[in-house]
Amino acid sequence: MTTIETQPKISFGTRIHVSPFFNATRRWGYKSYTTYNHMFMPAFFESPEADFWKLVNDVTLWDVAGERQVEITGPDAARFVQYLTPRDLSACKIGQCKYLLLTDNEGGILNDPILLKLGDDHFWLSLADSDILFWARGVAIHAGMDVKIGEPDVSPLQIQGPKATDVMVALLGAGIADLAYFRFIQTTLAGAPVIVSRTGWSGERGYEVFLRDSNYGDAVWETIMEAGEPFEIAPAAPNTIRRIEAGILSYGADMTIKNNPFEINLERLLDLDQDADFIGKTSLKKIAAEGVRRRLVGLKLSGSPMISANIRRWPIIRDGETVGNVTSAIYSPRMEANLALAILSVDATELGQELIVETVDGPVTGTVSPLPFHQKMQTAQA
Amino acid sequence: MTTIETQPKISFGTRIHVSPFFNATRRWGYKSYTTYNHMFMPAFFESPEADFWKLVNDVTLWDVAGERQVEITGPDAARFVQYLTPRDLSACKIGQCKYLLLTDNEGGILNDPILLKLGDDHFWLSLADSDILFWARGVAIHAGMDVKIGEPDVSPLQIQGPKATDVMVALLGAGIADLAYFRFIQTTLAGAPVIVSRTGWSGERGYEVFLRDSNYGDAVWETIMEAGEPFEIAPAAPNTIRRIEAGILSYGADMTIKNNPFEINLERLLDLDQDADFIGKTSLKKIAAEGVRRRLVGLKLSGSPMISANIRRWPIIRDGETVGNVTSAIYSPRMEANLALAILSVDATELGQELIVETVDGPVTGTVSPLPFHQKMQTAQA
Repeated sequence: MTTIETQPKISFGTRIHVSPFFNATRRWGYKSYTTYNHMFMPAFFESPEADFWKLVNDVTLWDVAGERQVEITGPDAARFVQYLTPRDLSACKIGQCKYLLLTDNEGGILNDPILLKLGDDHFWLSLADSDILFWARGVAIHAGMDVKIGEPDVSPLQIQGPKATDVMVALLGAGIADLAYFRFIQTTLAGAPVIVSRTGWSGERGYEVFLRDSNYGDAVWETIMEAGEPFEIAPAAPNTIRRIEAGILSYGADMTIKNNPFEINLERLLDLDQDADFIGKTSLKKIAAEGVRRRLVGLKLSGSPMISANIRRWPIIRDGETVGNVTSAIYSPRMEANLALAILSVDATELGQELIVETVDGPVTGTVSPLPFHQKMQTAQA
Repeated sequence: MTTIETQPKISFGTRIHVSPFFNATRRWGYKSYTTYNHMFMPAFFESPEADFWKLVNDVTLWDVAGERQVEITGPDAARFVQYLTPRDLSACKIGQCKYLLLTDNEGGILNDPILLKLGDDHFWLSLADSDILFWARGVAIHAGMDVKIGEPDVSPLQIQGPKATDVMVALLGAGIADLAYFRFIQTTLAGAPVIVSRTGWSGERGYEVFLRDSNYGDAVWETIMEAGEPFEIAPAAPNTIRRIEAGILSYGADMTIKNNPFEINLERLLDLDQDADFIGKTSLKKIAAEGVRRRLVGLKLSGSPMISANIRRWPIIRDGETVGNVTSAIYSPRMEANLALAILSVDATELGQELIVETVDGPVTGTVSPLPFHQKMQTAQA
């Protein structure tokens, strides 16, 4: 697999917005960009591979301001948030985060945000890449609940890697080392109001810093880089190699509105028998009873190392018939293998099953493999 | 204004999707990309200026597959579409297009699509850059209307420029020259089912070809390029210079959910006294009665020619106070002037008013100017 995909420039303008950390990431030398929730977002700094090694060996700082927050407040906020997700939130405490799926009436997945409970009537949904502000406002029109739904001035950073706690202790004192997984605190950093959570999109130990005033973008970024210097911190970005190794899914790539939670093996996020009502309850119960015809699996691909991630879903063939497609694929320099996530007909998902994958460079063999490919460094998403 | 904004590469992956015309645009040599509705979209080919001259002198072909369609069908489709927009659609005929605003409960703008009426119970909303599929499905949950809402396999191209009709006649025969502005027909092209409308985002004479089967992307692109060869057709893209000259607005840049239709001078798209109910009716009537505090205007900016479009909203100052900001700005080589769209306090919108604009390269003078800066070649959007 040696075809180098053309990599053109990205055009800037005001339709897609810049992050409060844009000037900082420019100073620190981003080399490639993507977009996320109508914002520009660095895709890598030195190279995807160099960023990967810094992430798994040291510690990295990411501008993920594109993870916009949908803020839900008001007397019926808790009931409304519960209405948006099949996961039972009745035991969720203030200061706690929850990984959620949002589903539509038919059980299709709309987003997989992290919920932050700031108060009994104050919630954030920290979003993957889709306009949940529009979805939530649309639902609210006739829902008969007293809620206010908006997008606050909040821009997250991620600090990810085995030395992440060292950096946070240098910034905030020894107490932060006790912050439990999927819990958060409210504090200040470089004079700016922030929320700090023990969450992240790497499978490594890590934190998110939610900046609550975009005027402090430069100050907060530089303060973290300075505190991280003794720990060899590097600027980086959400890393496709690491997240595929860890079996972490990307909304829009590995799941879309056309997938239900069962197909991507996230049944653990469904509480279908809870008393509370939520959107998609009837459909999801029906799917649970009937079963699904396709499932997400890991695939190891034969062939020489892939130069870059796939840019299309590659068809997967068995006995001349298409039985699924590769949603994401990349070469892992640590595992010395081409790793892929794929959605397959359930009758083709047996471990060790060998299939033909039609890549951009021709057919290779894909072998169904256990997920995650490489152990996560911290416990499963809470 | 000579600062060259860093222009890094764009990273490809499967989270953002490729268009059916992706291989064709690669062969024809795109040089820069943007994203639109979760799809990659060429931003220019030779250069923004060279593309501009081809657009205003000859004819150009654009991959705008990112203009996704929301398809609304079912017994209550007409009533539901009317419910989504303040514009009175009661006289809209099959085969007709309408330029619409979609507004939320508070009158905030969610999108400015083109509506295509394919049948009495069959509509497309051809979208600007926001997830109206999610909005419409959210609204539908409790709206009590019998509708089906989806995203069909439809990918538009635009053929724009003074010689556009010549190309369409070469492709489809002399009859297409009679197609009226904002009307469409259903036909085939290169064996593929298409809809052809006399619409576009250039202010020049032009057409859109809505490809209804993504397998034909290459064939349709090449067929159009071949038919256009005698007319010196060039591959190009939505052109910021031309659209600002023409005073055409870009959703996300010049208007967002925080703006109402009055602020961007699109009152003509509101029929507030119609009998039919629509989302935002109460709020928009209230705004109409109270008036607005800010308005979109044209500004001509002093200083040397801008190298590229602005990437942030620039503050506008009068007597030391911020009175608005520039939403879009670019240098027009035809008008030999830096042109901008801006949203200003209404007390600063008088024609000829001079204001300070704080650009990335320092302060310049902005003079309030009539819109459009340069006459549209065809009648105002229907």
